Amino acid sequence: MALILGIDPGSRKTGYGIINVNGNQHDYVSSGVIRLPVEQELPERIKVLIQSLAEIIETHCPQQVAIEQVFMAKNAGSALKLGQARGAAIAACVAQHLEVAEYSARQIKQAVVGSGAADKEQVQHMVKVLLKLPAMPQEDAADALGAAICHAHTQASLINLAGVSRVRRGRLR
Amino acid sequence: MALILGIDPGSRKTGYGIINVNGNQHDYVSSGVIRLPVEQELPERIKVLIQSLAEIIETHCPQQVAIEQVFMAKNAGSALKLGQARGAAIAACVAQHLEVAEYSARQIKQAVVGSGAADKEQVQHMVKVLLKLPAMPQEDAADALGAAICHAHTQASLINLAGVSRVRRGRLR
Repeated sequence: MALILGIDPGSRKTGYGIINVNGNQHDYVSSGVIRLPVEQELPERIKVLIQSLAEIIETHCPQQVAIEQVFMAKNAGSALKLGQARGAAIAACVAQHLEVAEYSARQIKQAVVGSGAADKEQVQHMVKVLLKLPAMPQEDAADALGAAICHAHTQASLINLAGVSRVRRGRLR
Repeated sequence: MALILGIDPGSRKTGYGIINVNGNQHDYVSSGVIRLPVEQELPERIKVLIQSLAEIIETHCPQQVAIEQVFMAKNAGSALKLGQARGAAIAACVAQHLEVAEYSARQIKQAVVGSGAADKEQVQHMVKVLLKLPAMPQEDAADALGAAICHAHTQASLINLAGVSRVRRGRLR
């Protein structure tokens, strides 16, 4: 059993989502969107982001973090802004001694929808289905929950792989 | 009297420099370069950066932070990497309840050399002269010390301006 915190970083809004993983069972715990005060200077925006994440971590005590690798921005200016939010979000997690795993948008879509080329609505829909939610989660929250689901799948595959290779080694003896 | 921490963020190396400001007197306290383990994953690199900055802040107890606005990168990929380091560095400072002021490279060069178009060597040279250092500081450390000097100048100008405007208001009455 493990609590996984997924994060979808953004310079204006950062989505988060927590799931509880118990074998193949994934249960929804919490999700939401941290809105940064865009009218304020960057240090103030970063303060809101890291304090909000610290509160979420303190409340739910996740053991692992999965963060979406930001979509390559159109220009250097928006890439810089995205990078700042992403760096601050990772800083907030490692400051709490949490391990952070990174997944590309493609890996997350593959894990959640079964296709790396899926669109935003498909991700939202499948997150709703997989976690048995009563309604469609907000877009950024859905991406964050998707990152957490992707991490759970990856961890499960690694464990299975380790199991298989152990068995194989056993048979070869 | 105030201790100012200057930071020059970078995705491989982050320069820092601390000066003690007493009126017009600027004294060198400490400076150096935090080298990030580039062979490791981003969360590990961010961990090294924020832990190093936390140690520096704990050792010297600066009251204010001045950070260089990163040079607009050539492409979105390097802007993202720079942004991540910058966001993490600001997060490390605001987590310690420090106020962070941002200055462009142009503002720092103007404050240190007297010309916004000065080159790296001129900044290093003038930082050495202004802080009466026995040798030229490393490039990133010099930029960080330059940011701290720029902040000291800006604060002094604001105080002078406030003084002038108070007198002016007095005269108008």
